[in-house]
Amino acid sequence: MSKRLTEKIVVLCGGVGAAKLLSGLVQVMDPSEITAIVNTADDMTLHGLHISPDLDTITYTLAGEINPETGWGLRDEGWKAMEMVKKYSGVDWFRLGDRDLGTHLFRTQRLSEGASLQEVTKEIALAWDIPVSIVPVSNDPIRTFVTTEEGVEIGFQDYFVRLSHNVVVTDIRFGGIESAKPSEGILEQINLASSVIIAPSNPIVSIGPILGVPGVREALQGRRCDVTAISGIVGGKALKGPADRLLQELGHESSVAGVARLYSDISSRLVIDEIDKDERERVEQEGVECVITNTIMESSDLAASLCRTVLALGN
Amino acid sequence: MSKRLTEKIVVLCGGVGAAKLLSGLVQVMDPSEITAIVNTADDMTLHGLHISPDLDTITYTLAGEINPETGWGLRDEGWKAMEMVKKYSGVDWFRLGDRDLGTHLFRTQRLSEGASLQEVTKEIALAWDIPVSIVPVSNDPIRTFVTTEEGVEIGFQDYFVRLSHNVVVTDIRFGGIESAKPSEGILEQINLASSVIIAPSNPIVSIGPILGVPGVREALQGRRCDVTAISGIVGGKALKGPADRLLQELGHESSVAGVARLYSDISSRLVIDEIDKDERERVEQEGVECVITNTIMESSDLAASLCRTVLALGN
Repeated sequence: MSKRLTEKIVVLCGGVGAAKLLSGLVQVMDPSEITAIVNTADDMTLHGLHISPDLDTITYTLAGEINPETGWGLRDEGWKAMEMVKKYSGVDWFRLGDRDLGTHLFRTQRLSEGASLQEVTKEIALAWDIPVSIVPVSNDPIRTFVTTEEGVEIGFQDYFVRLSHNVVVTDIRFGGIESAKPSEGILEQINLASSVIIAPSNPIVSIGPILGVPGVREALQGRRCDVTAISGIVGGKALKGPADRLLQELGHESSVAGVARLYSDISSRLVIDEIDKDERERVEQEGVECVITNTIMESSDLAASLCRTVLALGN
Repeated sequence: MSKRLTEKIVVLCGGVGAAKLLSGLVQVMDPSEITAIVNTADDMTLHGLHISPDLDTITYTLAGEINPETGWGLRDEGWKAMEMVKKYSGVDWFRLGDRDLGTHLFRTQRLSEGASLQEVTKEIALAWDIPVSIVPVSNDPIRTFVTTEEGVEIGFQDYFVRLSHNVVVTDIRFGGIESAKPSEGILEQINLASSVIIAPSNPIVSIGPILGVPGVREALQGRRCDVTAISGIVGGKALKGPADRLLQELGHESSVAGVARLYSDISSRLVIDEIDKDERERVEQEGVECVITNTIMESSDLAASLCRTVLALGN
């Protein structure tokens, strides 16, 4: 066990759920051995700024600076810039705090200077003294578009934030994904890791785009025995966000068995919550080992406990 | 006189000096009869944002929101975003307050949506209830570049802010100016105005680019009798900024006579400060009528007084 704790771990990450998992993981292993491969398909350009919500949620959480009330954004935040945007009747549904804006200003400027998203992300993590390697899945733009019931295609944040994901979705497209290259070194990290964890993030719009970057799914298939997914669906519902509705709307099953099916080619193991213990058989019918534990990370201790359980698997 | 006060006035504007003049002008005439044609060659893209320093200085001043200590930026400003940029070791020499950022966010977003700079400027002025018509000289990008003694060409704000204009300049170039079109209606405004005032702004880098937009100089030449310039050079020195050094470095004379010479084809009249009263003859040798008064707008009352004097000229 102690040997294992010094080995490299790769985590596939969306936003809040993944950030909680990482905040547990850094308590139970050497943080510098962790590589977080993060979804960028939620990224957007707004007010001319390059905004990377999942990268920032993970960075701010690991920095201990996340707003504890919202789970996103920074603590001790100010809203002077947004008040002005509102005064001008500008686009104010995507709330950008003054401190948070500093991150977007820096990122946008560095990208305009020719830095890659991967480099900027590293610089930001360094400024916060974060030892975890936080890596966007790709340096190439990938953008999620959502087709609503009305047959209109809108940007992901339009759906997620502006409309509070309160519309029926009939299709999802990850623009740019076919030509997106995996970030430098991530396929190697997947190949070298002692194990890979799929965070309890949205399987469709958070983990989906990571798996869709050419080469990533194949690399994971080669490591299937060492890949463990944690279900973000608990009792048929998403703990946060629209994963449950998206799964159903797009023809999947909003259940741990549905998640097992989605990941069955890349993951040999699914961790599900106690509440779903009766679903074990259905999960195993997907050819996936089923691990039952408390997966709801209501506290930092519970997150650490879940991570200890996950790291001990397969040893 | 009362008739004249209701007629249209056009003011050619740089930043702080022009803003002070306009704040005097609105006290002595109907503000809705004023059109401020504003330099945009100081504009820059930084952190992905479109920043228009002269437009903002004028807007904030007329809104009564200018920072009274600096003469630029907003009062009650916060610096949370810049503190973050500094934390990231980002570009922090161009100070952007949190409230001020709201303006740049809005402007950049509207431009990205296809609005013209003229439209956005109008929207911003409207939000501040400013009756003066504030118009960028052009909707097309014009950018001042400065060649330093070392033969290196740098952006204007690099020179003006980062280096505190503390280097010798050997050349100035207004990139994009040959193909810049005057903003909608400004040539008509110049033609229709009862008089045109050239604010006591930097003749080289503030008024220069306005005159350089194809059609503007010609329009002013046609109105020469009704154009009055106010010298920003007082006692051989610029009241603010590097105008005196720039004039000398670029082969002009840093004096009221030097200013008269630069404007002699477009302006029939130069208003100079009492301190320069012995220069009257040299100004008149340039074929320019010389008006001597107190031009230093140390207070709002003095600005109003100067404007009353200027408006009464030629009646």
